[in-house]
Amino acid sequence: MPACCWKPLPASERLCVDGDRIEVLSPDERAASIRLLVLDVDGVLTDGSIVYDYKGRQIQTFHVHDGLGIKLLQKAGIEVAIISARRSDALARRAEELGIEHLFQGAGKKADVFDRLLGRLGLESWQAAFVGDDWVDLPVMTRCGLAVAVSNARQEVKAHAHYVTSAPGGCGAVREVCELILAATGVLEACLKDFAG
Amino acid sequence: MPACCWKPLPASERLCVDGDRIEVLSPDERAASIRLLVLDVDGVLTDGSIVYDYKGRQIQTFHVHDGLGIKLLQKAGIEVAIISARRSDALARRAEELGIEHLFQGAGKKADVFDRLLGRLGLESWQAAFVGDDWVDLPVMTRCGLAVAVSNARQEVKAHAHYVTSAPGGCGAVREVCELILAATGVLEACLKDFAG
Amino acid sequence: MPACCWKPLPASERLCVDGDRIEVLSPDERAASIRLLVLDVDGVLTDGSIVYDYKGRQIQTFHVHDGLGIKLLQKAGIEVAIISARRSDALARRAEELGIEHLFQGAGKKADVFDRLLGRLGLESWQAAFVGDDWVDLPVMTRCGLAVAVSNARQEVKAHAHYVTSAPGGCGAVREVCELILAATGVLEACLKDFAG
Amino acid sequence: MPACCWKPLPASERLCVDGDRIEVLSPDERAASIRLLVLDVDGVLTDGSIVYDYKGRQIQTFHVHDGLGIKLLQKAGIEVAIISARRSDALARRAEELGIEHLFQGAGKKADVFDRLLGRLGLESWQAAFVGDDWVDLPVMTRCGLAVAVSNARQEVKAHAHYVTSAPGGCGAVREVCELILAATGVLEACLKDFAG
Repeated sequence: MPACCWKPLPASERLCVDGDRIEVLSPDERAASIRLLVLDVDGVLTDGSIVYDYKGRQIQTFHVHDGLGIKLLQKAGIEVAIISARRSDALARRAEELGIEHLFQGAGKKADVFDRLLGRLGLESWQAAFVGDDWVDLPVMTRCGLAVAVSNARQEVKAHAHYVTSAPGGCGAVREVCELILAATGVLEACLKDFAG
Repeated sequence: MPACCWKPLPASERLCVDGDRIEVLSPDERAASIRLLVLDVDGVLTDGSIVYDYKGRQIQTFHVHDGLGIKLLQKAGIEVAIISARRSDALARRAEELGIEHLFQGAGKKADVFDRLLGRLGLESWQAAFVGDDWVDLPVMTRCGLAVAVSNARQEVKAHAHYVTSAPGGCGAVREVCELILAATGVLEACLKDFAG
Repeated sequence: MPACCWKPLPASERLCVDGDRIEVLSPDERAASIRLLVLDVDGVLTDGSIVYDYKGRQIQTFHVHDGLGIKLLQKAGIEVAIISARRSDALARRAEELGIEHLFQGAGKKADVFDRLLGRLGLESWQAAFVGDDWVDLPVMTRCGLAVAVSNARQEVKAHAHYVTSAPGGCGAVREVCELILAATGVLEACLKDFAG
Repeated sequence: MPACCWKPLPASERLCVDGDRIEVLSPDERAASIRLLVLDVDGVLTDGSIVYDYKGRQIQTFHVHDGLGIKLLQKAGIEVAIISARRSDALARRAEELGIEHLFQGAGKKADVFDRLLGRLGLESWQAAFVGDDWVDLPVMTRCGLAVAVSNARQEVKAHAHYVTSAPGGCGAVREVCELILAATGVLEACLKDFAG
C-alpha cells in the first residue's frame, strides 16, 4: 500500500506526495489501497427517485446486482458503509439484508460522519472510496482516496471524481465500483471462479 | 431588473416593451428577473406516472436532485410554489419536506391560482417562472416571465416555452431550471463553493 | 362517414368494400369514422409492469398525458372503453377518475366483450378503434375499424395494426391515439385553443 | 431429441458428444430438446429492482408479456420452474397466477435445487433451459442444455450463455425465451393462429 497523503484539490490536480516523489494515481492504483467503501444512497444505491405512498411514507428501490457486489467486497475483508442525508426504514432493511453495520442516516454533514468513521476503523482517508452523485457529496469526495461519481451524477460531481461509472445509480453503479476494487486488489478472478468453476 | 410588460403571445413572438425599446429576451435575461418559481407536479416534479396502490390510493415519485435545487433557490431568497390539478398526500409530504409553503392542490384553473399568488407576494408576472408539460399549463405559460417546458412535455407546450430542459420531468428537469435561475442571478458559483470548498 | 364493411384480413390487405369501389384506407381516414375508442390496459395504459405489494396486491401505474387525451376525446362526444383480461382496484380507480363507464375487467374473450359493447352503443365495428400490445388483443384488432399497436407491442401485433404509436404504452401512447382521432375528426385545433388562447 | 451428454465447459467450447460424433449445437437446436424452463427471478422476471415499502416489506414488478409466454409454454406441455435466492410473497402471488408449481424461494445453492428438480421430473440436464443474469446463476448455466442470459446480465454471465436475449429482464426477456423454445419445437405458429385466426 502506498503511503501517501491527500490534499483536497480538484481531481485533475490531485497529487500523491510520497517523500520527494509526486505522482498522479490512476483509478486502479487508488482502488488497490481501498479498505473501506462508503456509499451515498439516493442517486447511488437508488436511481434518485423519492417515492411516497398515500400516507407520505417512503418506498425505496435498490438493485440486486449491487447487493452481490457488496457481499463479495465484504467477503474480501473490505468494509462497506452507508451515509445518507435522509432516513428511511426501507434503507435500514436493505442495509441489514446486506450485513452493512456502518449505516448513518440523517447525516447533516457527511464529511464529519466520514471522519469519525475513519477514526473508529483506524483507517486513513486514502484507504477509503466514496460513491456520490450530488453537491452534498463533494466535501467527502474531495478528501477520500478514490472519489467515484455515478453516470447520472451532477456534472460538477463528475468533475471532482477520479472515476465515473458507466452504469447509473440504482442500476449497477455500485457493483461496478465493487468489481473495480476487487480487481485492483487482485481477487476478482477468484471470486468469479467460486461461481463459474 | 428590466421594467417590461408581457403580452400573452406565442413564445417566438413575445416582446418586451420597455418605453420605445422593443426587444426579445433570452432565457438567461428572463431568468435574471425571477423572484418566484412555480411548478406543475405530474410530468414536471414527476415523470408523469399516476400510480395507485391496491386500494386506489396514490403513490408518487419525485427526484432527489430537484430537491436540492429547490432548497438552494429558497436559500437565495427566491420563492417556490407548486400548482397541481390533482391532489395527493404524497405531494403534501414532499412539499413539507422541501419547505414549500405555497402548495395549491386540486387547482381547477391554474391561471387564477397563479394570479392570486402573484398578488399575495406583491410580484409581477414577469418576475415569475413556470415549469409545465401539458396543455393545461399553457394559460400560465403564456403569461409568466419565463415559461419552461420539460423535455417530455407535449410538443405544443414546448412550442410555447422560452426554455426547454434537457432533462425530463421527475429526473432533474426542475433542478436544471433552479440552476438556470441561480446562474442568471449570479449566485450559482457561490452555492457550489459552499460544498466543494 | 364512409359506409364500408370490414373483413378480418391482415392489415396490409384489409380492404374497404363500398359498392364496386375497393380502397385501402389510411389511418387518418379510419380515424375520421371513430365513435368509440377501446383500450387494453397492461402494456397500453401501463408499460406492462405487473406490480405486487408485500401481500401480493396489485399496484398499477398510468400516465397523466393519457388522462387528458381521454377527457378531450369524451368532451368531443367519442366514447371510451377499457377491456382488460386482468382485474385490479387500481384500474377501477383510474377509470372512475377519467369518467370511463365502459370498464370490463377479467374479460375472458375480448372479442365477445367488444361485440356486446358495439351492440349496446348501436355502433358498427368500423366505428371503433382498439389499442393493444399482445396476441390476446388480435381477435379485436382484426375486426375493428382502426387497429392500433403501441410501440412496445409484440412484433406480431404491430404486423396486424393500421397504426403503430411512436410512444410506448404507459408513456403517452393512448394520448397519441386520442390526438390522432381528434385531428381526423377536425376538432384538435379547437381543443388546443381552449388552453392556449 | 438428440441423445447427448453435457460437460460443464465455457459456452464457446461446449460440445455435444454423441457416440463418436462431436458437434456444437446452435441455440435453436438446443431449444428443440427443452422440456423444462427454469427461471431466476431478480433481473430476469424483474429488472433487478429490490423495492421495499416503508416497513421494509418487498414490492416486486413483473411483466405482462412474460406471463403470456409462460402460459403458452405450459399449454405446449413444457414445464416451467422458478428458483430464487430471495423470498417474497409478491413472487408467490405471481407464480400462483401463472400456475407455476415448481417455485423454489430462498435457494442457497441453485444447482442443488436444479438437480433435485430434474430428478423429480425424470429429465436430463440437456432437456432443461435456464435464464439468469448474475454470477450466482453460473453453476446452473454451466450444466443445463440451453443457458440464456438476459440483455442486462453481468458480462461474465453473457460469456457463459448459449443465447443472450435482446430484451432486458422484467421487460420481455422471458417471453423471448418462451417463443424461442416454442419456435424450435415447431408450435409457435399454431399458438399465434389461436389468436390471429
